[in-house]
Amino acid sequence: MTASTTQGRDPASLRRHNLRTLLRHLHLQGPTSRAELGEVTGLTRSAIADLVGELTTRGLVLEEGAGQPHTQRGRPPLIVSPRDESAYVLAVVVDVDTIGIGRVGLGGTILEEAETQHEHVSGDPTRSLDQLTGLVQEWLESTETSPVAIGVAVPGIVRARDGLIARAPNLGWRNLSLGDELRHRTGLSLPIVIGNEAGLAALAEHRRGAGREYSDLVYVSAGVGLGGGIITGDRLLTGHTGYGGEVGHMITHPGGRYCHCGGRGCWETEVGADALLRHAGVHDPADRHAALDALFVGADQAETPALEAFRALCTPVATGLANLINIFEPERIILGGLLRSLIRHAGDELRTALDDLRGLPELDVDLQPAQLGEHGRLLGAAEAAVNSFLARLD
Amino acid sequence: MTASTTQGRDPASLRRHNLRTLLRHLHLQGPTSRAELGEVTGLTRSAIADLVGELTTRGLVLEEGAGQPHTQRGRPPLIVSPRDESAYVLAVVVDVDTIGIGRVGLGGTILEEAETQHEHVSGDPTRSLDQLTGLVQEWLESTETSPVAIGVAVPGIVRARDGLIARAPNLGWRNLSLGDELRHRTGLSLPIVIGNEAGLAALAEHRRGAGREYSDLVYVSAGVGLGGGIITGDRLLTGHTGYGGEVGHMITHPGGRYCHCGGRGCWETEVGADALLRHAGVHDPADRHAALDALFVGADQAETPALEAFRALCTPVATGLANLINIFEPERIILGGLLRSLIRHAGDELRTALDDLRGLPELDVDLQPAQLGEHGRLLGAAEAAVNSFLARLD
Repeated sequence: MTASTTQGRDPASLRRHNLRTLLRHLHLQGPTSRAELGEVTGLTRSAIADLVGELTTRGLVLEEGAGQPHTQRGRPPLIVSPRDESAYVLAVVVDVDTIGIGRVGLGGTILEEAETQHEHVSGDPTRSLDQLTGLVQEWLESTETSPVAIGVAVPGIVRARDGLIARAPNLGWRNLSLGDELRHRTGLSLPIVIGNEAGLAALAEHRRGAGREYSDLVYVSAGVGLGGGIITGDRLLTGHTGYGGEVGHMITHPGGRYCHCGGRGCWETEVGADALLRHAGVHDPADRHAALDALFVGADQAETPALEAFRALCTPVATGLANLINIFEPERIILGGLLRSLIRHAGDELRTALDDLRGLPELDVDLQPAQLGEHGRLLGAAEAAVNSFLARLD
Repeated sequence: MTASTTQGRDPASLRRHNLRTLLRHLHLQGPTSRAELGEVTGLTRSAIADLVGELTTRGLVLEEGAGQPHTQRGRPPLIVSPRDESAYVLAVVVDVDTIGIGRVGLGGTILEEAETQHEHVSGDPTRSLDQLTGLVQEWLESTETSPVAIGVAVPGIVRARDGLIARAPNLGWRNLSLGDELRHRTGLSLPIVIGNEAGLAALAEHRRGAGREYSDLVYVSAGVGLGGGIITGDRLLTGHTGYGGEVGHMITHPGGRYCHCGGRGCWETEVGADALLRHAGVHDPADRHAALDALFVGADQAETPALEAFRALCTPVATGLANLINIFEPERIILGGLLRSLIRHAGDELRTALDDLRGLPELDVDLQPAQLGEHGRLLGAAEAAVNSFLARLD
């Protein structure tokens, strides 16, 4: 995170690089004094003053006295903060049944958010595109300042290069250029970045949740499907094209149930919502959400059948986690969605199952519930949007 | 790979950084003209001349005319090359039955190598340490110039921070500080770096073998055990402590055979040498090496039982590979050891098995045999030694 220059490179590109470094620091670390900015970037006082001046002029940061009383010996330090009310991104979470949308300021504060029913028609994204376009336009019109970028989290595999959604199985989407479609329909020239919801939630937990200060993390969240995001050496694992991190399709039960992906015995089929319901004796419920809610209520009230269902999930969950531990040796595993409830209702059983399956005791690991909960995906979409804005900052 | 400076940082650290960058480029890319060095580093002509002069004085590079005829218009370009005869590392490969050792020049040329019987006593590393110390001393005395560093590949999990071998199951070693022991016994003050053999072989394939030009790779090699090394975004995956990348202990057959790690149904138990022999009807052979050799000869002569044994390995091999594809989305999978033979004798069956198991067709991948063969680990140990030398170059 040092501001740097390259001998023989032009001053404009150096300045751009330093602006981005400064703003990224403020976004991630929050209000910082000029002196501290100098320390972390290695830039001189006058360079910091110049760059902060530029960011202030652009409305991206503001500078204030720290509020400490004046002393005899000099002025109070000037504190630089991201100006989140005017420098914000629009974050969107597309789920099967809902669309979440929010304004997230530089610095990671959710300024405003809402959720609406997703009126989607499986296999045909037209209705969804109309709805998303309308929502984005409505939000843009509701505020005086425009966002600096838009980030969208989707339940699908996404090509990193251009945001193409190669496949979103639960929505029935294939090869959808969601970013291009939104740009075309809204006429916006903002950066619009699309990402896999679990990868983005992992990014958010790493930057602002249970994964802060950890460089090697595995995030796994189960609902109807099972998604994962892996941080290795402080970077989100994307794979070559962006389709990596599909931990839900590890085969943990060879020859097991068919998965919607076409494979058999994928981890997702063993530990997702349907698996939990099966363990509670509920097969093909008419209303899956209602059945899950009833199960959660039962577990909260310590009813035996509900607790037994969670306990039955421990070994299949531990099987996949053991694999991920052997492969990634993370410091911490963060569990979201119904796996978060699993820690609560059967945490000891889960840890025991994991100890029984893991051969290498050197690979110790800490299991933690996700901290950002339902906001993980929204904050992750915001982080992706900020990344994209910073990369283009000129 | 650009040489860079940090505003406000001292010139000595800048110079050190630039020296390392230049030498790393020559090591990886081979002979390069001064002009090209200027282009790739962004440094001025005079800075390049100065740095090359310094590296020449230290005996690390040499500079020659390109051998092209003089023209009317100026001198032939000066080509800078790593001086591999005098700037080399000692690379050591510790295996259960053998110890390989070689001198590898900057630039990756094996200058000299030999293999000897490893006189090891399981569980007690003393005899091995005596032998390794003797071998290293013998090699140091046999040449006039000293190596710049020593790299050692071991079949075990190694802590990145200090090279502690936490566990080497097939040697029966636990918590062995091999680097410290060698340093102490030889009295050398050179950097001595220890690494997991499969991780190092992956590094070598990435830099000098079947993985050149690929940023996302999975390398898997099977013998008695099964090791893997993963390159993601051009970096070797190590995990938090260095114990990551243990793909051999993915559970691909829950409730299956016990593995030496204490787990059950690890991939290693399903696809290693013993599994191959079992498929050929050979159980607990008195001489495993002889039995394997016979099997390989049989397969080369297209004998049905040997070919059937390879074919039977395809689905278990593909199960683990499918998982790694879903997780890492590599561009290429490189197969070493007996999996290299598997491609040769049952490549079509392996690809078919993989297609049957993989649900996500977007995750396309290319299977290739390892290119460096038995030299992969030696060259990998050399790369680790060079990294360590470069990191300390002052």
